[in-house]
This record gives sequence, structure tokens and C-alpha cells, in this order.
Amino acid sequence: MDNSAVPEACPGVESANAGKGSACAGCPNQQLCASGEAAKPDPAIQQIRQRLEGVKHKFLVLSGKGGVGKSTFSAQLAFALAGLDHQVGLLDIDICGPSQPKMMGVEGEQVTQSSLGWQPVYPLDNLGVISIGFLLSNTAEAVIWRGPKKNGMIKQFLKDVYWGDGLDYLVVDCPPGTSDEHLSVTSYLSASKVDGAVIVTTPQEMSLLDVRKEINFCRKVGVPVLGVVENMSGFVCAKCGTETLIFHPSSGGAEKMCQEMDVPFLGRIPLDKELMECCEKGTPYLAGIHSHEDEGELAEQIQNEGVCRKAMRSVVQGMVDGLGAA
Amino acid sequence: MDNSAVPEACPGVESANAGKGSACAGCPNQQLCASGEAAKPDPAIQQIRQRLEGVKHKFLVLSGKGGVGKSTFSAQLAFALAGLDHQVGLLDIDICGPSQPKMMGVEGEQVTQSSLGWQPVYPLDNLGVISIGFLLSNTAEAVIWRGPKKNGMIKQFLKDVYWGDGLDYLVVDCPPGTSDEHLSVTSYLSASKVDGAVIVTTPQEMSLLDVRKEINFCRKVGVPVLGVVENMSGFVCAKCGTETLIFHPSSGGAEKMCQEMDVPFLGRIPLDKELMECCEKGTPYLAGIHSHEDEGELAEQIQNEGVCRKAMRSVVQGMVDGLGAA
Repeated sequence: MDNSAVPEACPGVESANAGKGSACAGCPNQQLCASGEAAKPDPAIQQIRQRLEGVKHKFLVLSGKGGVGKSTFSAQLAFALAGLDHQVGLLDIDICGPSQPKMMGVEGEQVTQSSLGWQPVYPLDNLGVISIGFLLSNTAEAVIWRGPKKNGMIKQFLKDVYWGDGLDYLVVDCPPGTSDEHLSVTSYLSASKVDGAVIVTTPQEMSLLDVRKEINFCRKVGVPVLGVVENMSGFVCAKCGTETLIFHPSSGGAEKMCQEMDVPFLGRIPLDKELMECCEKGTPYLAGIHSHEDEGELAEQIQNEGVCRKAMRSVVQGMVDGLGAA
Repeated sequence: MDNSAVPEACPGVESANAGKGSACAGCPNQQLCASGEAAKPDPAIQQIRQRLEGVKHKFLVLSGKGGVGKSTFSAQLAFALAGLDHQVGLLDIDICGPSQPKMMGVEGEQVTQSSLGWQPVYPLDNLGVISIGFLLSNTAEAVIWRGPKKNGMIKQFLKDVYWGDGLDYLVVDCPPGTSDEHLSVTSYLSASKVDGAVIVTTPQEMSLLDVRKEINFCRKVGVPVLGVVENMSGFVCAKCGTETLIFHPSSGGAEKMCQEMDVPFLGRIPLDKELMECCEKGTPYLAGIHSHEDEGELAEQIQNEGVCRKAMRSVVQGMVDGLGAA
């Protein structure tokens, strides 16, 4: 099915008039529609359902605007879930700007093929990552692809990656916006049970403006909104302790917007230089990743965490609790 | 021409084999290619050239990653150029996340039609703005469009907007990435002289990674890189004056990358709460916008500007100087 040149007055593939209306003349799908083939769902949707049958929880990480920390949050959430001894998969479907190879500290690694499917790259034993970044010959290479090629890649990732015997969590890191990648991933996953979407934002109205669009997108395509995370929620000067709301919540911030839009608010994560450094280095931000370290020592580390790490931990815990047993 | 279902082994529209190769079977463009029509350039390219004939300088504002301040920079650059008494147009081609109606303080305004074409919205007498944001019935409405519909909208903006008798500068604010919108805008403008592209980034390697992709994209499509602006270059605490490099330049920042990639470095703009507030309120950040205010007073205002405003002013001046006479 080729949706790029569908006429404005398309009668719809399920209409009795499909392929036969006057608007259908010249449409590339005319024959397909007239034959009734177009009304049949893409067989990949069932193949994807089978492929992901062993995955207990699947959710999307979305944002309206770019650069609000969506990939940072996805990466650290994946590390944190793995630190809680879960089996975790992280799928990066940002085709033109893949961040996860670097954020997970596995830049330069390669995806391999086996008889079971494509093998993710494993930064930890219980954490696999897939990204188009692993398929490029060099990191500066631009992926200059229009929508349909991006959609094909996403379909292949969902259909052909072998995530092991089963996963507790599959985290799908999406690009910003409400376009090809988002329509494709939600349509391809329509037969696989998706828990929902987490939306990341900054406190600015400029970002919340796009979050409202994203929430309306989720409602239109039938993906539940698990909640909204407010990132870059203020900056505390390490020298004098003064907090500055650099990204100013001029309209009351994410919590107020969540009330207005009737979606859960998952919490606030302040701007933290150390979090940025972890992303640049591809290392976990929260302690507890090496699950075999001394338990007393780990408890002490967690006890002594600063306000930003505590905030991140609370958001992760809230999500895990919200999703139910893994 | 419908590029969505083109086979991998497409012989190319200009090949003698176009529409006749074995790979062409089933391609929606087979007939178009076999007839030779597909090799003819899109007539819109010449219509756009004519429409923009009176525009002295046209340039794109790009970024690799989202959220680095591309729209903020575009908005404040447009205000600043207008403040220098130029005729300025600002075209927002971020179809799924339009920021300019709010950033220019003209949210809720409408684009009107006249016999000369679509009329931009004018936040100032000498500054017109076009954005899909003006066409939506409410600001929370999601534009859930795949590539071809986005491309159609961009073509219409370029072809049908009447920018007045002539413009000194047309600033095109693009979405992040290297996909549909970027291919379309550069192809539609291929017969109109484009000065080049300004690329905005943060100091982080995570953002520079995508800037390298964007520079390679510009090289592939033949758009000169006018230079790179490093935004969010550090934060100075207003209370104690300590500077924190929140977005850490782990690989040496944009200046070093510019040397490596052999493109001009346009300067650094630090994180500034006031700049963010101007964007949220849709007001100009630099003084001098009201060109009829007292000259001595204006000179004094400029003299007393803080480090962030001075940095922004220097970047704008560098760009104007680089582009030559308006």
C-alpha cells in the first residue's frame, strides 16, 4: 500500500467504492483498492505480534518538541530497569538522528544476523539495543530518507530483531513530532499489546504546546498516555545553591497541563550536569546497575544520591509501579 | 512523481531504461517514467523561482538534533534583522511542531488570501511570518501527516505566499533532521539562489554528532554552510556569577568541530533565562527593534547589554556581514 499520492477525496480502502470512485483515477493504489487487497491488513502486523509475544511490557517514549531529553530519559530508564534485574530491550526509531549507540556507550558496535533474527547490541547482559546508528559506516553519515524508507526500516526492526527468550520491558525511543515514524510504529504494533506512551517535556509553554499535540495524537491512534515527565525542571548552581528556572514554566509547567488534559503527571527531573555527562559517556546515571555489588553499599549509595538522581529514581519507580508486574 | 514505493533497484528517471527495467514492474511511477515525463523537472521549481525573485537573501536555519534553539535563533534573528530596518520574511516549515506563531507573539492570527497570494502575518511592519500554526483551528491540534502531505504544504508556502514588493532576507526555519522537509525545501529552491544554511547546535557531542550529519546533507544537496552557531553554551548563575557548562562540550564543542569539518564558526550564545522568556512571550530579545526610538538612548541600551545579548548581537552581525549587501 502506497499512501503518498492518495487523493484528498479518497473514499477509503474499506468503502464499497474503493478504487472505483472518480477521485480514484490516477491514484497509485487504484488497482489494489478495486481488487479488495488494500482493505486487508499488512501481514507484517501479525508477524510483529508473533515476534513480540514474549515481551511483557512495551511502551513508547515520545515528545512533541525535540531536545527535551527524550532519548536521555529512554536511555537512563533502560539502564535503570536493567539495574532492577529485568530483561530490557531499547529500540531507537529515530532514523535521521539516532542517539542510542552513543548514549548506551556502544558506539561503533554492529548488529549481527543469526538464524533467529537480527541480534541487538548488548551494553549489559540483560539490556539489548537496536538503532540505525549500528548500521551506518561512519557516525557522520547522514541518513537522507523520506518517510517510506524510514517506515520500512522501522517495520524491519519490529519484525526481524530477536530480543532473546523474552523481555520484561521493550522501550521504544521515538523521534519528536507526529509524522511517519509515529504513525508507522503505532500501526505496526496495533496487534501487539502496547502499554502506552510516556511523554517527555520541558516546563516551557513552547514545549507543552507540542505535548498537547502529542497527547491528541495518542488519543487519535488509541495509545494510552502513561504519563508526562517534566525534564530540565530548573537548575541548581553547585556553588551557591540558587535554583534558576532557565526553561521558564510560563503557563504553569507540565503538572498543570496534565490536570487540564487529564493525564498522569510522573514527576520533575531538574537539569543536572552529571546526567548530561553520563549521556555523553554512555554510562548509567543511577546506582544499582551492577546488580551483584554489595547490597549494603548500594543502599548507602542510593541514600546519598542528590536531588536530581532521587527525582529520576522516583519517576522510574512510578512507571514500573504503574505498569504492574514484569 | 510519487517516490514512496520506488524499488531499491530503480534505474533512475534520467536513465534510458526508466520505466522499462525489470525492477520497474509494479512501481507506481512506471508509466510516468516510460513516457519520459518523470525526467522533466517539477514546474513548481520555476514558479517558486519567479515568486522569490525579489528576495535578496534566502537562507535556511537547520540543526541536526531538535531542541537546540533553532526556532529561538530564527525568531530572534528575524526580529534583529527587522530592527536593522530590513524587510524580513520568516517561513516556518516545521509542519508537525510549528513554533513561530508563539515565538513571534502572533499566536491566533490568521493567514489571509489576496489576489497576489497568501498574506503573511506581520508582527512588525517590516517582518512577515508564515507557519502552518496559523492554519490550525486550535493550538493543541496535532498535524498527523506523512511526508508527501508535508511536502505539499511546503511547496504551497514557497509558491503561493506574497511577501510584498521584495524582501531583504527570507529566513527559513526547518525542523530537525535530514528527511522529507529538508529534501523538499532544497529541491523546490534549487532554481532560486539560496545563500546557504546556518546550523544551530549545543556544545554537547550528542548534538554535534547530528550536526556533522547535517553538514554532510548540505554538501550532498549543494547548499553552502554559512556557519555554525553554538547555543546554550554555558549558564552563568545570576546570584554568584559561577558559570556551569550544563551541556558539556565533551569533544571540544562546536568551534573545534567547525575546524575539523572546515566550516565557519559563527559564535557562542550562553543559556539565558531572559532569552527563553522572550520566546515564551513572543517579544524581541535585542534592543533596537523599534527603529524610531531615540538613537542616543538605543546606543546606551546596547552599551549596557549583558554578555548573552552581546553574544547574540555579534552572531547576527557576523551573519549579515557574511551575506553581503542587503
